Amino acid sequence: MAADNSNAEQRFSLIKENLAEFLNEEIIKKVVDEGGHPKIYWGTATTGRPHCGYLVPAIKMAQFLAAGCELTVLLADIHGFLDNLKAPLELVMHRAEFYRYTISTLLGAVGVSTEKLKIVLGSSYQKSAEYVMDVYKMASIISEHDAKKAGAEIVKQTDNAPLSGLLYPILQVLDEQYLDVDAQFGGVDQRKLFIAAKEWLPKLGYKERAHLMNPMVPGLHGGKMSSSDPDSKIDLLDSPETVAKKIKKAHAAPQVTEDNGLLAFIEYVLLPASGLRGKKEFKVERERDGLETLVYEDIEKIREDYKNDILTPQLIKPAITRDLNALLAPIQEAFKNNKEWQEIAEKAYPPPPKKEKKVKNKGTRYPGGGKPEEKALPVRTNGDAPAEATEAAPSAQ
Amino acid sequence: MAADNSNAEQRFSLIKENLAEFLNEEIIKKVVDEGGHPKIYWGTATTGRPHCGYLVPAIKMAQFLAAGCELTVLLADIHGFLDNLKAPLELVMHRAEFYRYTISTLLGAVGVSTEKLKIVLGSSYQKSAEYVMDVYKMASIISEHDAKKAGAEIVKQTDNAPLSGLLYPILQVLDEQYLDVDAQFGGVDQRKLFIAAKEWLPKLGYKERAHLMNPMVPGLHGGKMSSSDPDSKIDLLDSPETVAKKIKKAHAAPQVTEDNGLLAFIEYVLLPASGLRGKKEFKVERERDGLETLVYEDIEKIREDYKNDILTPQLIKPAITRDLNALLAPIQEAFKNNKEWQEIAEKAYPPPPKKEKKVKNKGTRYPGGGKPEEKALPVRTNGDAPAEATEAAPSAQ
Repeated sequence: MAADNSNAEQRFSLIKENLAEFLNEEIIKKVVDEGGHPKIYWGTATTGRPHCGYLVPAIKMAQFLAAGCELTVLLADIHGFLDNLKAPLELVMHRAEFYRYTISTLLGAVGVSTEKLKIVLGSSYQKSAEYVMDVYKMASIISEHDAKKAGAEIVKQTDNAPLSGLLYPILQVLDEQYLDVDAQFGGVDQRKLFIAAKEWLPKLGYKERAHLMNPMVPGLHGGKMSSSDPDSKIDLLDSPETVAKKIKKAHAAPQVTEDNGLLAFIEYVLLPASGLRGKKEFKVERERDGLETLVYEDIEKIREDYKNDILTPQLIKPAITRDLNALLAPIQEAFKNNKEWQEIAEKAYPPPPKKEKKVKNKGTRYPGGGKPEEKALPVRTNGDAPAEATEAAPSAQ
Repeated sequence: MAADNSNAEQRFSLIKENLAEFLNEEIIKKVVDEGGHPKIYWGTATTGRPHCGYLVPAIKMAQFLAAGCELTVLLADIHGFLDNLKAPLELVMHRAEFYRYTISTLLGAVGVSTEKLKIVLGSSYQKSAEYVMDVYKMASIISEHDAKKAGAEIVKQTDNAPLSGLLYPILQVLDEQYLDVDAQFGGVDQRKLFIAAKEWLPKLGYKERAHLMNPMVPGLHGGKMSSSDPDSKIDLLDSPETVAKKIKKAHAAPQVTEDNGLLAFIEYVLLPASGLRGKKEFKVERERDGLETLVYEDIEKIREDYKNDILTPQLIKPAITRDLNALLAPIQEAFKNNKEWQEIAEKAYPPPPKKEKKVKNKGTRYPGGGKPEEKALPVRTNGDAPAEATEAAPSAQ
């Protein structure tokens, strides 16, 4: 498919596909029209463990790569660390490493070249003197009110919320400059922050960037699944059997296409993924009922058939399971063959310690100090898949 | 006098003299009792031009030095720069240099050894990776509400105030740790921030510091003088004639001792300054009236006589003029003999450009950018002398 996109119009159309909104698209259009490689960045705080909710932005990013973009994935490790100050810094570093392996493998798994993929740690520049002066400067010209507005949908807005919630929008805006990109990509929940970025960067003499937004996609399990249910989240390394079991349990009302996590997963993950591999299609086998296999090439027909109960949750679930497992297979294969990745996984997500009689913790990390009273909230949600993203909240240590 | 303070009790008493409040004085007491040198810091944003209002904290600092303390003066140049983003960075750097000359000369001028004086630029560590991580960390555990409370009296509290107003308290608190001091000194207007420092530093595992506070001292000219009147502010380099002229114009009602800037200046500058030189006294000559010279050794008697109209503004003003000029003489002498300082003065406070026909300013500093809409307010006021300090607002460029 990538080769087919050498044509500017096709490339630009692939970049735009499935987006909910695209601000200043002329910036990207110009680069594409000139045969260049638009530089786009996506950021994620390395807090929890990447799960199937990540497939939504990942597939979009794979499309960017296929369309000849230079993609920068920002692993916001400092944010990850600050979001959960109780976790030691090494753990966060290991998690960032785990994310690095996962994301590069995941993008490779859908068949796009990762030659133009750059994975950057936030800590590699967010502590530099130059960056910090810009943080100070921006804080001096942006009002508290505007910082609050920018983070309205991604930061908890209470008076008791930590100050970092007001500081993070500034960092995320400056990242566009320091990652030297043409555009930032995220979920539409980032819209207010993206608008702020457009306004704030020129105040420091930096250029305005384009912003690409994915729609808010319901989680694979729908909003009804308990987020505290560990089974509701499909890990990228879950076995085919586990995947089958979890999808079987997914909530989906027959004939209801609104907020349908299964249909959304087909639309935003499976169909574009098959497209990247050469042909956009989604097959539903009906052997058991003695009927011919249904082959879809677009989501509209799928929705129509679902509404009319031609496609039932019972029919669709095995099809999703099959395609999702196919998508995960190369990732799991890579993991199995990569000793380093396995070791990082163990360090990044150690089994929870057995509960012992509570011993007074003297706090080795903050000798003599009290423990942080407030927990910062992640700014970088995977807004693209809110239900899943919510479930990805930093696991308590 | 310094030699006389070798005794711990005398040293501690000199440290405490004239303070409005002293939090955790046991921290300093312990160091003094052990014959050590308590480390105290005072910070000032290098925005305006140091004037006679600075003499109030300066004399207190001279007492610290005389009492064998290690004194760190923080020249908050980054704050100075951010407070007035329109001023180019070099100007702020020159001003910091000007402050450095002025403060060290001023402390030397009252006869104390400046051997234990350290003058530090904020920019020398406030951009370091370690410091910045602590700023991020602190922002993650301090709520917006608490940051606002800490800055309540020193930062403009409006919704439209720049975010830096909430960030600065964090910086000022961390400075105690990074300047490696036992205590911070400031005006009582810093009280809320000092209380915050006591609470916040231990959250990062850092030790709690002592806090020494000067009372709020009315300006030499009283609150009634117009702050826009350039004559109302006495520059440390003003000629004896100019000083005499300005003091003559100072507002002071006969017999009223409350909020009396003249009496306050005697109490917090002239009496302790003479004390540092060997003998605490304030002489009022009455030759013109054919009366004997009045010699005071404490402020109580001065207040009493002022109330009873024995001491009138007309009598007191020439006495203050004489002592202030004596205090300024060595500073002006040093300035006259220091070519570098003179050059810095010219660069730091260039004459305002002649008003020409307004040409559209394209903005060289922020190419392509708009200009900052909000002006940050200095956190570091010379709270010790509010009326003068107010007048010291950054001069517009």
